[in-house]
Order: sequence, then C-alpha cells, then structure tokens
Amino acid sequence: MVDKATRPTRDPVSFIDAGGYEISVAAGLLTRAGEIAAAAAPAHRYAVVSDSNVAPLYASRLVEQLGQSGESVPLCTVPAGEAHKNRESWAAITDQLLAAGLGRDSAIIALGGGVVCDLAGFVAATFMRGVPVVHIPTTLLSMIDASIGGKTGVDTPHGKNLVGAFHQPSAVIIDPEVLDTLPVSDLRAGLAEALKHGAIADAAYFDFIASSAPLLLAEDPGKRDVPALNHVIEKSVRLKVGVVAADERENGARKALNFGHTIGHAIELLSGFSMRHGEAVGVGMVLEAAAAERAGVTDAGTASRIRAALESAGLPTARPVGPSVSSILESMRGDKKSRSGEIEYAVPTRIGVMAGAGAGYTVRLSDAVVAEVLA
Amino acid sequence: MVDKATRPTRDPVSFIDAGGYEISVAAGLLTRAGEIAAAAAPAHRYAVVSDSNVAPLYASRLVEQLGQSGESVPLCTVPAGEAHKNRESWAAITDQLLAAGLGRDSAIIALGGGVVCDLAGFVAATFMRGVPVVHIPTTLLSMIDASIGGKTGVDTPHGKNLVGAFHQPSAVIIDPEVLDTLPVSDLRAGLAEALKHGAIADAAYFDFIASSAPLLLAEDPGKRDVPALNHVIEKSVRLKVGVVAADERENGARKALNFGHTIGHAIELLSGFSMRHGEAVGVGMVLEAAAAERAGVTDAGTASRIRAALESAGLPTARPVGPSVSSILESMRGDKKSRSGEIEYAVPTRIGVMAGAGAGYTVRLSDAVVAEVLA
Repeated sequence: MVDKATRPTRDPVSFIDAGGYEISVAAGLLTRAGEIAAAAAPAHRYAVVSDSNVAPLYASRLVEQLGQSGESVPLCTVPAGEAHKNRESWAAITDQLLAAGLGRDSAIIALGGGVVCDLAGFVAATFMRGVPVVHIPTTLLSMIDASIGGKTGVDTPHGKNLVGAFHQPSAVIIDPEVLDTLPVSDLRAGLAEALKHGAIADAAYFDFIASSAPLLLAEDPGKRDVPALNHVIEKSVRLKVGVVAADERENGARKALNFGHTIGHAIELLSGFSMRHGEAVGVGMVLEAAAAERAGVTDAGTASRIRAALESAGLPTARPVGPSVSSILESMRGDKKSRSGEIEYAVPTRIGVMAGAGAGYTVRLSDAVVAEVLA
Repeated sequence: MVDKATRPTRDPVSFIDAGGYEISVAAGLLTRAGEIAAAAAPAHRYAVVSDSNVAPLYASRLVEQLGQSGESVPLCTVPAGEAHKNRESWAAITDQLLAAGLGRDSAIIALGGGVVCDLAGFVAATFMRGVPVVHIPTTLLSMIDASIGGKTGVDTPHGKNLVGAFHQPSAVIIDPEVLDTLPVSDLRAGLAEALKHGAIADAAYFDFIASSAPLLLAEDPGKRDVPALNHVIEKSVRLKVGVVAADERENGARKALNFGHTIGHAIELLSGFSMRHGEAVGVGMVLEAAAAERAGVTDAGTASRIRAALESAGLPTARPVGPSVSSILESMRGDKKSRSGEIEYAVPTRIGVMAGAGAGYTVRLSDAVVAEVLA
C-alpha cells in the first residue's frame, strides 16, 4: 500500500458524485491513482491504455501500483493523436489484452486525453462483452468532457465516433497538476468546451471563463491562476454530470452538449484532424449560433458574444477555408446526429439557455441558412 | 401494408414475453417478418444482415417489405460460416451501413443463424453507439439460443465471442417452417442445445427430446413430427428466456447456460470451426459431466445419459483426436469464462439440476481431472 502520509495530495480532494461512480479532483492525485482505481474497480488483472505522449510521463508509477498483487499489468500505448482513434487501434489493444491473458475479471485504466478515454472506454465496453474502465484524463478537455458520461467510441473514414458504446466508467481521477506539463494550446482547446458548458447552461460561468482566460492561459504554468483553473474543472465537471444524469442515453437534454459539434465535427474531420477538437467546436459554436440567429431561433448578438469569448482565449473563430460549403454539409449529413434525413442542431436561444427544451433539445435549420454562414 | 388475409400464417402465433421484447413463433411468419420488425423497431431506415446461404432464400421479400416507405434497405451479406464471425465482417457491415447513409434512426434486421445473429447484434450494439436489432433466426440453434438473451459478439484468433456487447433485441421472429429448407445436420446441432436446456433445468424435457429425436430428425421434412419440433422450439425458448430474465448480465444463474461450452468452445476453436457449435457443445457436455462425476460434483451415470441422448440424435459424443490435451486446456484458460486465473465450469449435479446454485452457479474442476477425461 502507498502511505498517504509520505505522498500527500496538495489540496483537499473534491469528490463529485456522478451517479454510480465518483469523480475525484485534487492536485497531486496522480501519485495515488493506482490505489483509487483499484478500490473503485476491484479486478484480478489490470491493463493501462495510454498514448505515446503521456505514457513516458505518468504510466510507470501507475503500472507499478496496479501490479502490487504480483500480476503483470500490460501497458498498451497508441501513437498520440485523433488519427489513431480507430478500429485498428481498438483491435490491436484488445489483442494485446488477450495475448497477456486478461479475462473477464479485468479492468482497464485509461491514462491520457480524449482520444485515449474514448478508445480505452470502447475496448472496455466490448472486451469479453464489457469490463470496468477507470479514466485518468490528462488534458483539460478530457477532464471536463470525454472522461464523463460514458460515451465511448472510435472514428471511421466516414466520420467521428460512428462506432462505439455507452459504458460508464467506475471512477474518474482528475489531477489538475498534470496540466502544467501540457502546452498552453491544450488548455485553450479545453476552454472551448468549458465555454460551451457556460453557453448551454450558465451565463455567469460563460462570462467568468471569458474574463479569466488570459490568466488561465499564461505560458508559464507558475503564473497561471490555479484556483480559477480548478474552479473551471470542477464547475464544468459538475455541469456535465448534471446534464448526463438527466439523460444518460442522449434522447433529450444531453443533446445540449452537442452545441457546436455538428458543424465542429465536420470541419475537424475535413481538416484531416489538423484542427483540434476544441478549436473545431469553438468555431462550430460561432457558426451554429450565427445560423440560428438568421433562422430567428437565437437572440441577435449571441454568436458575436461567443466569438469574443473565443478570441479572449486565443481560439480560432472562423473555419478553415479549404473545404467547400457543400462538402461540409455532406459530411454533417453522414454524422450520427442526422435524424430522419434532416440536420438537427443543438443551439442556445441566448447564452445559458437552450432552444428546444421539452421538444428534443434540437432545432432543424435549413441547409440554405447554414450554407450562408459557412460561406 | 401487407394484407394478413392474403398471406396467412398457418398456425396461431405464439407470443412469448421476453421482458422488454416479444418472441413470436408461428409457421409461415417469415412472410410477415418485415411488418412485425417495423412495428417492434420503428426506424427511419432499415438494413438487413444475412449470409450467403440464407439471403438468396428469404432476403428479397424482407427487403421489399422494409422498403415500403421508399427508403432503400441495404442488404449486407457475409459468407456463411463461423469463420466470418469476426471483427473484419463487423467493420465491413458497419461501413456498408455508413456508405448507404444510415444514421442513428436506423434498425438492423438479422436474418440467419447464430453467426448472423451474433454479428448483426454486435453491429447494432456499436453502430452510432447502439441502434435496435430484430432477430429472424433461421436455424434451430439460433431460434433457441443465439437470438435470445442479448449476447452479441465476434470471434478473434484467441477464441470465440471474446469481443462483444450485451444488446437486447427489439423482437425475435421465429418461423419453424424455414427449418424444412435446412439440412438435417442443422437440426441435429440445434438439438444439442435443446438437450442442454433439459440437462440444466428440466429432466422430463431432456427425456422428451432424447425419445423424440428420431422423429424430429427425419430426412424428409414431410415425415418430421412437426408438433414435437414446435414444442422443442417453444419449450427451449421459454426456458432460456426464464434463465436470462433472472440474470441478464451473466453474474449468476445465467452461467448455467454455459454447460458444455467451456470444453465445447475450445474443441470447436481447435477444429478450425470444422466442428459445428452444437456438436462441440454436445461433446463438451459429455466431457464436463464426466469430469464433474470424477470430482464428486455430479451423480454417477449423468455423462452416460447425456451420451445416450446425443447418440439418439446422431450427434458425436467424443472429441476430435487431433488437438492435444494441453492445447485444449490452454485454449480454455484463454476463454472468457476463466475467472481469477482458474477454470470454472457450469455443470449439473444430475440431469435437470445445476451445481453451485447460490454459489455462482459454477464449480472449479482441477486441470488434472479434466485432462483425464480429455485423454
């Protein structure tokens, strides 16, 4: 056992009840992650799934902690990047687990960003028809988004997350200190999702992020506003947990979380993933809000408020010029949010309030209006 | 709409409540399968998954019925046989659905035997994170086994069903008349599972099958005892539904259904799938019961009763001589029923009564005892 006294966390641990599992947040928590994971998901064997950026930094201690029973702990490392979140990586990790002799009494620990959480979650959802997964997200985006809510999946050449499963984690372990080792561009991409949380549910939180962004994003980690960053993590986690709890299978309220993602996924895909997910979602929010303004669904000025907030966080606000309007529309039609052959969007009526509450939480926007804002 | 009066079923339809979905059984039901499937799983688009044996016989009318709304209905056909129940077929079918433009509002119809039900079920479980599936099983084995209970999955080079998900169907449509077009060897393989149902839960049913087997298996379909065959289908369906309802996620009572499957899967796999699933399970029952007799778990004479019943159905009772004892044991250890590194078996104490009730429904048998009966 690790002696807590010799490896203290530096802040009190916040425990957030996600309904069926617990999300722990505290600086320094990574040093005890193996313990926490093993307690939340007792298993005969463990495997760690990570990527080529994160594994060299944090995997060895985790593997050591999980292997204290004497059983070997395979470390499955995929190359970093969305391009590797595919069925081939899923099959390769599964085969590694099988070759290492893992059976039904196993649990998977995901250590990394959104790609790793989604991929390892899908491995766990389908390995022996489902084994537990614990998420240890290491980017701001994955802390407040991919690690929570049980959505797992991989991309196919037709689009993002087209294959997957709903599989709730047994625990999520968040150590904000790991953000210090990441480039500031990762923080930026995460702030786009945090702004989305404000835009769909909490105008005051939206304004807090927009005004604090410069301090949250200081190049020197020592100069960042750590309490404000921790507030963003906890606030966004609680906000997402609340939305998911109301609608685990995404039939209603949870669709609000798709704001910015319908156009965002398409431009991310068409960029060949050279555009980051958070960046694409930010641009998607501006464009979807602008289209909804034209359609009379959303209050005038909403898109420009989102644009200004993204700018304060140094995030892009315009789509890449490469892809044609028709190719973007075509890509959106292939996306799984396409319902009954028409394209639906989750958009706010104003910052903090969603359109379509009580009516599916989506609105249909004509391709013509969307084409105007894409042009 | 299809006019019932012009396409009557020849027997009254039996509706079996499987808890959340309905299993319909009647001769001639296949002529109305599209209607029934569409009512049970309303969707914007449908796809039919079948295999190269079954599709030419039954797919065209089904596709026609499902396409009455004017939307095209892709027919995804895999080559027949267990060797094609793999991740490559799963990915290929998924890609066909995506290429055809199917979205979240779709449903999959599985038309075929156990391979098709397992494979199409796994496609449905993971397509857009889950769409409904309706099973139309066309073999005795799939009618009474694969189509019921929500287990989906595919094989990997490491073993059978190692990747999959639990995904309950929206409906199961059984037309016993389709059995007339199948070789009698398919009926035989199905009877092995029916005998298993008797062995684990109902001694009188076990004896009924053993005594009726010659009449059930007449080469000429016109000479088969149709009421007895229909009784086997309904009785086995109800029996399996009851076990699954008690334990959907296979943590307890459902494990009883694994009788014969621990050794059976291994010898099926090592035969390169030249041995049929039902045949392998039959042999597995004999060998597992014999080992459990030696271990003092099962009453003496149980294995020989099973052997006699299999012989009355013309089923093999001895394993293929090719694979070594150690290779069979090694293959079983890799199987997902391996728990905590030891091999557990679901075996009856006597015909109709399972060992381990109240204690996980499995017993551990030493490799030494199992090796003796395998030798």
